[in-house]
Amino acid sequence: MSAFQQFEDEGAAGDHAARLVALRRQMAETGLDAFVVPRADAHQGEYVADSDARLRWLTGFTGSAGFAIATADKGGLFVDGRYKVQARAQVDPALFAVVDWPATRPADWLRKALPDGGTLGFDPWLHTRREIETLRKGLKGSGIALLATDYNPLDAVWTDRPAPPVGAARIHADATAGEVAKAKRERIAAELASSGQKSALLTLPDSISWLLNIRGSDLPRNPVVQSFAILSDDGHLALFAEPAKFDDALRAHLGNSVSIQPPDRLIDALQAIDGPVRVDPGSAPEAAFLQLELCGTTIAQATDPVILPKAMKNDAELAGMRAAHRRDAVAMVHLLAWLDARGPEGLTEIDVVEKLEGFRRDQGILDISFDTIAGVGPNAALPHYRVNRASNRPLVEGDILLVDSGGQYGDGTTDITRTIAIGRARPDAIGPNTAVLRGMIALTRARFPKGVAGAHLDALARQFLWAEGLDFDHGTGHGVGAALCVHEGPARISRISDIPLQAGMILSNEPGYYREGAFGIRIENLVIVQPVHAEPGREMLGFETLTLCPIDRRLIDVDRLSSDEINWLDDYHARVRHEIAPLVTGDAHDWLIRQTQPLD
Amino acid sequence: MSAFQQFEDEGAAGDHAARLVALRRQMAETGLDAFVVPRADAHQGEYVADSDARLRWLTGFTGSAGFAIATADKGGLFVDGRYKVQARAQVDPALFAVVDWPATRPADWLRKALPDGGTLGFDPWLHTRREIETLRKGLKGSGIALLATDYNPLDAVWTDRPAPPVGAARIHADATAGEVAKAKRERIAAELASSGQKSALLTLPDSISWLLNIRGSDLPRNPVVQSFAILSDDGHLALFAEPAKFDDALRAHLGNSVSIQPPDRLIDALQAIDGPVRVDPGSAPEAAFLQLELCGTTIAQATDPVILPKAMKNDAELAGMRAAHRRDAVAMVHLLAWLDARGPEGLTEIDVVEKLEGFRRDQGILDISFDTIAGVGPNAALPHYRVNRASNRPLVEGDILLVDSGGQYGDGTTDITRTIAIGRARPDAIGPNTAVLRGMIALTRARFPKGVAGAHLDALARQFLWAEGLDFDHGTGHGVGAALCVHEGPARISRISDIPLQAGMILSNEPGYYREGAFGIRIENLVIVQPVHAEPGREMLGFETLTLCPIDRRLIDVDRLSSDEINWLDDYHARVRHEIAPLVTGDAHDWLIRQTQPLD
Repeated sequence: MSAFQQFEDEGAAGDHAARLVALRRQMAETGLDAFVVPRADAHQGEYVADSDARLRWLTGFTGSAGFAIATADKGGLFVDGRYKVQARAQVDPALFAVVDWPATRPADWLRKALPDGGTLGFDPWLHTRREIETLRKGLKGSGIALLATDYNPLDAVWTDRPAPPVGAARIHADATAGEVAKAKRERIAAELASSGQKSALLTLPDSISWLLNIRGSDLPRNPVVQSFAILSDDGHLALFAEPAKFDDALRAHLGNSVSIQPPDRLIDALQAIDGPVRVDPGSAPEAAFLQLELCGTTIAQATDPVILPKAMKNDAELAGMRAAHRRDAVAMVHLLAWLDARGPEGLTEIDVVEKLEGFRRDQGILDISFDTIAGVGPNAALPHYRVNRASNRPLVEGDILLVDSGGQYGDGTTDITRTIAIGRARPDAIGPNTAVLRGMIALTRARFPKGVAGAHLDALARQFLWAEGLDFDHGTGHGVGAALCVHEGPARISRISDIPLQAGMILSNEPGYYREGAFGIRIENLVIVQPVHAEPGREMLGFETLTLCPIDRRLIDVDRLSSDEINWLDDYHARVRHEIAPLVTGDAHDWLIRQTQPLD
Repeated sequence: MSAFQQFEDEGAAGDHAARLVALRRQMAETGLDAFVVPRADAHQGEYVADSDARLRWLTGFTGSAGFAIATADKGGLFVDGRYKVQARAQVDPALFAVVDWPATRPADWLRKALPDGGTLGFDPWLHTRREIETLRKGLKGSGIALLATDYNPLDAVWTDRPAPPVGAARIHADATAGEVAKAKRERIAAELASSGQKSALLTLPDSISWLLNIRGSDLPRNPVVQSFAILSDDGHLALFAEPAKFDDALRAHLGNSVSIQPPDRLIDALQAIDGPVRVDPGSAPEAAFLQLELCGTTIAQATDPVILPKAMKNDAELAGMRAAHRRDAVAMVHLLAWLDARGPEGLTEIDVVEKLEGFRRDQGILDISFDTIAGVGPNAALPHYRVNRASNRPLVEGDILLVDSGGQYGDGTTDITRTIAIGRARPDAIGPNTAVLRGMIALTRARFPKGVAGAHLDALARQFLWAEGLDFDHGTGHGVGAALCVHEGPARISRISDIPLQAGMILSNEPGYYREGAFGIRIENLVIVQPVHAEPGREMLGFETLTLCPIDRRLIDVDRLSSDEINWLDDYHARVRHEIAPLVTGDAHDWLIRQTQPLD
């Protein structure tokens, strides 16, 4: 079995100049003055199959977000701040200029690239309605027309395009799911009926996989079945996915009220659908809207009805997540104990990634939940760093190592970050690390009324950094799926997230601090939103910590901790010892006992 | 000179039954099945002149928010949670049922009151466009038509209606304003021009008064000139206000580029205006929109352009506010010293209000900035309590007293709340008071990046209450005007305020806790948003405290304070002593020295 994580730059291969020439020829034949190539596929997920890696094929850029626009003589690759450096390294500037997005909007760039107007084509399967509305608004008054093409000119010239994935789907046991699929469908169908909707179009594979209690192997990291579905208000569901993915046992698990149809039947089904049909403008393809509008079908624009129920985990899902986190803690403890015992000599970031993946394999992972971020020194100052052969740095005594990683287990998904001193602690990192830890503790200990959203709690995690004039430029936390995607909506801990937190939601709590060219710090635990005691007439929520792994005390200035904070950390370490020590033996056990002693 | 604050129930007088009959007769003649009577006037302020107190005249209700709807046989008075008890006490249930708003929307009530549909009339001068849009949306599908009447049927039957106010306007000195009015107009006119707007309609008296460096005496508490204005993109301004308010000196101060016209000329001016004209749908009357639409004038819907510049105080305004707060602190110190020395015997809430107003008069107030809230025991548990002869309670040893009050000085507006133990502290109030104080301190000490809004900081003030399952049901802070309205937009500290805080804004910081039937706690200081130090590449803000008055240590559990919190309180008290002790003499001076010693 080969390792999950690879360290090659898979974007480099290929003659991107020739590909761009071929695309431009195709655009000219179609009468397009410009064409936009997004990173996304029709399902808008974080990962795309090789057959959908259009942006990588055209430009060489392998980041998880961005898009390119080609005109007859210009090319622009639009990426956000995270990917500026990577895009510059991967993309030939003679073909595509790297454009700072969203600071520069595509409409602004196009106005300069096409001063006399023209037609911008897009494949309506690869863009959401909301995206197209924003683009259309931006182009208003520019003289540039926006045209949904009925075929994709890039696909037409991509002669060696891989076939779409047909990864086997598998049963996600009802006992692990905690609710049989039929009950889930009926629950959500009842909500559709009460909203006066006849059906809902589902286009998010994690929504569909959760709803049907199935998991897939079409994509790396995200155990979803690539598919579309139409859920009717009577609980019947039409599943549009390659039938070869489903064996007999799985078909039996799905039952009679689920019909499996090839993906290319979706358009016919949309034509036949009775309205009102619920479609999510934030995630469903523009093509679906156009098809329904062509038929005059009434569309109810609303959020995918599965997103919220999926986010509010039931007791069985929470039990699975707790069990997965205990196993994952064992892997992390083995890694950290090994690192401390062995010392850094001769080790690199890639060694850390491979060692950790090995320890997780010992615990039975089906996949890692995302490519491990293991960075030392200045590499760790890039919050989304992913090591490759060229960037790989040796571990050096006195440096600090940031490891952000997770596993996909059959019963749960994990995501943990620890920042570790290699040998003795770097003195200038202790202050910021202590501020980050205090923020992590403050958010963990927070209690708050129902109705409060991540936007209202984000400051708790940042307050101690802010007090010193410091901050970090990413969200504090994201939702996490139960044996599903490690990044899951709808709630986040972020200044812009107004989705109220609700019991059963699982979120990451991961403040950090990054000093460019020097070091990076992040401490991350996952937490469950749980009801807590409140005075009569109020309902309050708090967090239960899922992640169980020691926090490096070499990087903590204990004098800056309040007694409440010291108590929290001591209690946390005692809990880690109590739950994890029985699961590890030998040197790792001894290491764990030492690391979970109370602070001095 | 009579006292500013009165303690009579001015709503009680009058034959409300006869008035309702007269209104219904008028409605019938006009063909209206229902008519809505709001508390607001055309300027949507917190106070209305007697001539605009339509809701009070019709129903007897004197609260600052709400509206009534009358049909031929039903009446409903819509008030929010704050005013439920007061409305029930003031209004005859045979005439008007008290309706819980916004839980019950007017559209829902009307559907029951008018099951066969009908016409709901409204006076378009008394409702904003946004209000009418919301109402229209709610009535969709009900069969009820919404009709803007061209006269007000209530005014037609209000035979003894007072004349509109013609309070003298006065100069607000340029030195206090910190910017001459012409420069303000040119600055905002330039913004209109750069937005492609020819003019802006201004309907908020505090915007107009700030813009022209004038103050007025039309209303209690808010020193504004009731007026409308049209600002042109060349800086000229047409002021629609009773000309008798302006003497020669004031006219000279206004200068040649301001023309004063009687209010009834506004409609002609709207007819003559060139578009695009900026109008604020959140504050401008529906009537203005209808008039402009009738003329086919292009309307640019956007926020009143004065609101943000007015909120970001300049150095002179801040200096005035600091000076006003020093004077106000002297008044508060006199009150608190007198209370402690005299003891509660024979004193009532009204005595406290009158005594405090006297101390503020000694400091030269022009008005109080709102009716003083002075409540003991269960009265203080009503956050918006205002004492009257019937509710007035005696001060009793062992109770706690909440005093929320402020003054209008020539150079600044104050707003302060202190919660005081009468003699020894009530033990069950010490825990909540300490949690409230810690929240007040945490918000005061907060530093945060530019872009952060009140919604992101609100939790800092509540976190210690939340930790104990407690909370309070009002915002944490509101904007405050400089020698203007004590409640001023646009920024607030509240879960729903997404307006970024900016340097120069002044906000209240007033967490509280209310135990029904027992006691109420609130601690309030005003703060200025100020730039603070940050690492390179970041811009951060913090708060400077304006309010200078000791915080009652009898109600603090020092063991629950962190060393940082103790240091903050000791530093604060040292600053109060340093700045205020030189301004008071005798017993009050001694009391102040004692109250500002470091905590044990």
